[in-house]
Amino acid sequence: MPPRIPALADPRRTPGASVIEYEDASPEVRAVYDDIMATRRTDRVNNFWKALAHHPPTLARTWRDLREVMGAGALDPLTKELVYLAVSMTNSCEYCIASHSAAARAKGATDDMLGELMAVVGMANETNRLAAALRVPVDAAFEGEPWPRTG
Amino acid sequence: MPPRIPALADPRRTPGASVIEYEDASPEVRAVYDDIMATRRTDRVNNFWKALAHHPPTLARTWRDLREVMGAGALDPLTKELVYLAVSMTNSCEYCIASHSAAARAKGATDDMLGELMAVVGMANETNRLAAALRVPVDAAFEGEPWPRTG
Amino acid sequence: MPPRIPALADPRRTPGASVIEYEDASPEVRAVYDDIMATRRTDRVNNFWKALAHHPPTLARTWRDLREVMGAGALDPLTKELVYLAVSMTNSCEYCIASHSAAARAKGATDDMLGELMAVVGMANETNRLAAALRVPVDAAFEGEPWPRTG
Amino acid sequence: MPPRIPALADPRRTPGASVIEYEDASPEVRAVYDDIMATRRTDRVNNFWKALAHHPPTLARTWRDLREVMGAGALDPLTKELVYLAVSMTNSCEYCIASHSAAARAKGATDDMLGELMAVVGMANETNRLAAALRVPVDAAFEGEPWPRTG
Amino acid sequence: MPPRIPALADPRRTPGASVIEYEDASPEVRAVYDDIMATRRTDRVNNFWKALAHHPPTLARTWRDLREVMGAGALDPLTKELVYLAVSMTNSCEYCIASHSAAARAKGATDDMLGELMAVVGMANETNRLAAALRVPVDAAFEGEPWPRTG
Amino acid sequence: MPPRIPALADPRRTPGASVIEYEDASPEVRAVYDDIMATRRTDRVNNFWKALAHHPPTLARTWRDLREVMGAGALDPLTKELVYLAVSMTNSCEYCIASHSAAARAKGATDDMLGELMAVVGMANETNRLAAALRVPVDAAFEGEPWPRTG
Repeated sequence: MPPRIPALADPRRTPGASVIEYEDASPEVRAVYDDIMATRRTDRVNNFWKALAHHPPTLARTWRDLREVMGAGALDPLTKELVYLAVSMTNSCEYCIASHSAAARAKGATDDMLGELMAVVGMANETNRLAAALRVPVDAAFEGEPWPRTG
Repeated sequence: MPPRIPALADPRRTPGASVIEYEDASPEVRAVYDDIMATRRTDRVNNFWKALAHHPPTLARTWRDLREVMGAGALDPLTKELVYLAVSMTNSCEYCIASHSAAARAKGATDDMLGELMAVVGMANETNRLAAALRVPVDAAFEGEPWPRTG
Repeated sequence: MPPRIPALADPRRTPGASVIEYEDASPEVRAVYDDIMATRRTDRVNNFWKALAHHPPTLARTWRDLREVMGAGALDPLTKELVYLAVSMTNSCEYCIASHSAAARAKGATDDMLGELMAVVGMANETNRLAAALRVPVDAAFEGEPWPRTG
Repeated sequence: MPPRIPALADPRRTPGASVIEYEDASPEVRAVYDDIMATRRTDRVNNFWKALAHHPPTLARTWRDLREVMGAGALDPLTKELVYLAVSMTNSCEYCIASHSAAARAKGATDDMLGELMAVVGMANETNRLAAALRVPVDAAFEGEPWPRTG
Repeated sequence: MPPRIPALADPRRTPGASVIEYEDASPEVRAVYDDIMATRRTDRVNNFWKALAHHPPTLARTWRDLREVMGAGALDPLTKELVYLAVSMTNSCEYCIASHSAAARAKGATDDMLGELMAVVGMANETNRLAAALRVPVDAAFEGEPWPRTG
Repeated sequence: MPPRIPALADPRRTPGASVIEYEDASPEVRAVYDDIMATRRTDRVNNFWKALAHHPPTLARTWRDLREVMGAGALDPLTKELVYLAVSMTNSCEYCIASHSAAARAKGATDDMLGELMAVVGMANETNRLAAALRVPVDAAFEGEPWPRTG
């Protein structure tokens, strides 16, 4: 006789980390929140930062790094955002997909661009496994990639 | 007394899949090789395709898909290549990193662009884990991403 | 003094992509939905396809590929479904685990088969990491796998 | 004209595996539950075990292994728990992060320790991808790691 | 002026863990080796076990588990081996792909079966990312998978 | 007739990124190398840093972060190193496993400690997949982990 299995009391997921709102934050954390809002020209701070605020040194370091890495450079901000989103899709990071999709749209990504991005991400994940499955020997033509010897 | 451990006979890796050269390929496989070379305007076929040729239906389908996905569209070819490379770096696919780095350079990527790409990929992998570790609740502002309701 | 942390307003997750129902779909999308239902002999289309419909070219290509890959061949359909499920478990894809478990059951998988599948998937993920941790040299006996030289 | 997209009926996730409560369990499963509670000096059995109980051989084997691996040894129980949590964060396993965070706290982990753990996990995931992206050649000084030849 | 970059002394990889041969092994390790050879009806022990022998408790436990999990059951041995290989391909574990390809062939896998397996693994990795990218809501029809409520 | 498949010319892997030696480095890069050697009290710089030197801003930022994160804190340096190694094993990062195994030994890790670490990493990767496969509902007792509400 199979065991009788009771219904789950509540199918909802248990919530994760609490978030620290501005009014409850220490001066150290508020300084980071202020810089986030000023840099992004918004009056909102995303939950990611509000949850990370439980460990102020990691909050400060991560924000400092992100501001440096995502700023203008050889790649334009939209391309960087699409790359960030592609990595997040590959890692199946739900929060990150949601937040970086929104950020990509804010920087100009259209429905068609996001659709093509998904297609590329999907295919790359497919052929990455085919290449691994086959244990393909790297072509001599690719020697030294991604930094070919130039000396 | 600890066991005496003999040296390995040869530290080199055992080679993976063999590759099927053009002259040994069936007409079905040659047709794909021909299309790859014509599309890419080159006289080389990468080892990936030559190894995949052991299973002709997968060779034909994968090439057909890749040609469709990586062609001109809402995203330009270089951006698609950078996204492909970012996924390959995230999956630590050595072959794919080597081949798509070379492809990105052929499409115009500079040293600085690849350096910034790596930086973004690294950071995304870091914050993806921080978001997971914190089990961050998705902001209401991101509802419906990546396809917001437009109805 | 530790910060006072307010309770989250609502522990539920923000919903992801909206889905496009048949009656709201373009003729191009409806054609794919029709083929899915005819091939699977059902009058339902899963949310995966209804969400993918936001980018019709990816919807059409993905369905065409899946129909080709999962059809009868050297491997029977149930084995293919179990392999699909094993990959989905390894990637921790919640949607995919749910949908491919249901598909495997529809193709004849029993509770015991799914239990043993989970056990194999778990162990493979364990020993994959042990092999990586040890940086085990590949045995000479495995040279050329998965496609041994036959010439 | 873009399609009209109806709202989702309910944003909540569909629940996963049901759990088997003690009173519904077979004697074989109860014996494992009893050993879990006795070993951990608690009167609760976590949902992980109650869901795994659908396949009793996997339940019994997994618990036997975990008890053996996580017990006292060259590493202390808290260090083992932190390592388990670090792996779970890297794999983005929500259930595992929640349960092993609680276990780590029960074994003495403080807020600061968990904060630093997250920081290390984040950075390791970042530099792991940088090392892969660069295809860095392993230094001769690291030959034979993690088990240097001692013979 | 770009820096002059010297050629690498030797492009070969630094070898990983040393392996412990039968004649150098402790009685405890020899007992496991003996059981592996008897169970598999062979006079070879793969490098995986010879490297794992550096930590005898893990060697003994892992072998005991593998023998239990991979034995005859509701799934036949070849199906289990294909599932093991599919996971190894998904994790890009080179050693594991090589050894489990060889094992699958020894249990009857043909070239066509391995080709179709690769195709399924590739597609599953693709659609797993598409499902994640879209944050697809799980269909109500899949409630309770993989263990539907039966009470 | 099966195709004749020629032997690979050379089974060795194509080398990856070149490394920039001290004598070829810019003053900006040398400053980082100097700080690495001073902090670690060694006269060697690992290949990771020498390859990362192709993009000086990423070299400088990554080293600055690592020095901050891995320094003394609530967790001792050996525990941090073991956590770093556990993540690297989970990600199958060969370079990182080799370098952080060496670092862990330099900070006091013994053979038994590394053996137990591997065992924990292996098991965590196994149960992470079991938890995902079962889609286990998070226990109410774990609400708010890893940062329980304290307000």
